Amino acid sequence: MERIVGRIPVRESLRAGKRSARRLFVLHDGTGLDEIAAMAQGVPVERCSRRELDVLAEGVVHQGVVLEADPLPILNAGEWAKGPFPEDALVVALDGIEDPHNFGAIVRSTAACGGLAVIFGKHHAAPVSPVSVKSATGAMEWIDLVQATNLVRALQVLQGQGFWIAGLDPQGPQTLWDADLRGRTALVIGGEGKGIRRLVMETCDFLLRIPLTGPITSLNASVSAGIALTECLRQRGQPRCAAKESRPQGA
Amino acid sequence: MERIVGRIPVRESLRAGKRSARRLFVLHDGTGLDEIAAMAQGVPVERCSRRELDVLAEGVVHQGVVLEADPLPILNAGEWAKGPFPEDALVVALDGIEDPHNFGAIVRSTAACGGLAVIFGKHHAAPVSPVSVKSATGAMEWIDLVQATNLVRALQVLQGQGFWIAGLDPQGPQTLWDADLRGRTALVIGGEGKGIRRLVMETCDFLLRIPLTGPITSLNASVSAGIALTECLRQRGQPRCAAKESRPQGA
Repeated sequence: MERIVGRIPVRESLRAGKRSARRLFVLHDGTGLDEIAAMAQGVPVERCSRRELDVLAEGVVHQGVVLEADPLPILNAGEWAKGPFPEDALVVALDGIEDPHNFGAIVRSTAACGGLAVIFGKHHAAPVSPVSVKSATGAMEWIDLVQATNLVRALQVLQGQGFWIAGLDPQGPQTLWDADLRGRTALVIGGEGKGIRRLVMETCDFLLRIPLTGPITSLNASVSAGIALTECLRQRGQPRCAAKESRPQGA
Repeated sequence: MERIVGRIPVRESLRAGKRSARRLFVLHDGTGLDEIAAMAQGVPVERCSRRELDVLAEGVVHQGVVLEADPLPILNAGEWAKGPFPEDALVVALDGIEDPHNFGAIVRSTAACGGLAVIFGKHHAAPVSPVSVKSATGAMEWIDLVQATNLVRALQVLQGQGFWIAGLDPQGPQTLWDADLRGRTALVIGGEGKGIRRLVMETCDFLLRIPLTGPITSLNASVSAGIALTECLRQRGQPRCAAKESRPQGA
């Protein structure tokens, strides 16, 4: 059982319906909580004192509401990568992101850009932490959280499903704007300070750089991810200029 | 006097030369610190024990190096906005950003994209905190940090200098991709959860939305800022398609 804390995370959890809600705790004289209580149809609601909620929330700002629910499902990459996937499927693969603020913000951007999943390595055993959940502002509920024992292998399976694997790398030979990101795409984001590991980099179909012009030569990992995700949206909203070379299925 | 802690912040401070370095403390048996010591020409260098550095760094990870330097100058918007400015000047104005991670990441993105300054309101009395400095990875040293007693007034002065004021707003009538961001531009980023205040919004020449497609309808503030900054770079790297309507000087 997990506790979801705060208005936006609780609302998004109930709205997404990805996991079963078990009990809703609301402040007995809290205002503005009717919408949330109305969404929790069939879920037992308990009115609590502020002190009781403080204890349930374990120090996280609760805004008068805590939800007990089944844990967020963490999917296995081997099963998940079998698909099926829509033609324009967009996913993000993280190669060593360690900061929970970044993890949460990347989940948020992925969900906001219509991405299906965030894939992460096995070292990320507990991506769902209070800090990352807060940074994700409910987005954890909307996308698939996929854990890969072997990230290279997971990306290869996606290649077999017709995905292009695009790594973000400051030394990449191509700029983000010049790549064609309209088909099935997996964006690979490297860890803070370390970037993408060699074997993962060798698995990428292309390496893209965000062409920066200032004295500082890199961006925060979650900022880079957001830029690449919205570049996908920008391109996908544009008329197609030329036929894209297609990846053979199962290649 | 301020203490700058850690290899990247110290290196960037010495490289940028925006403020005078007073004393450099390095770990007596630290490796990989020669580059930094060589950059600190004329600055007294003291070899310290790990324990002494721990005390100087006040809990921040120091990686064997701490620099004592004059405080980062915080410029007054009234003076700063008099310019002069280059034709393609790019600045970011923050209307209520409170999270130091976001503040630092926005400073980093601004510097990486060749922006001149981050402008912030008077409530941001201490933008230079250990967390924001760490998130900025040295970028605080490279751009102007400008404090405005009245943000609306500061934006109006910039308009008089030929700047277009572009606010990011999820309800904006125009998409970010459709705006012309090639002239002097000030990007306005609203506070976490609250967005841009009404009076500031009314000062904007245009309000731009990042057209999202997913169930989550907003992005982290520093992610939004990074997307807008790199969109400026993308457009400025493209050939000009049509003459841009020019803002009369002093309007």
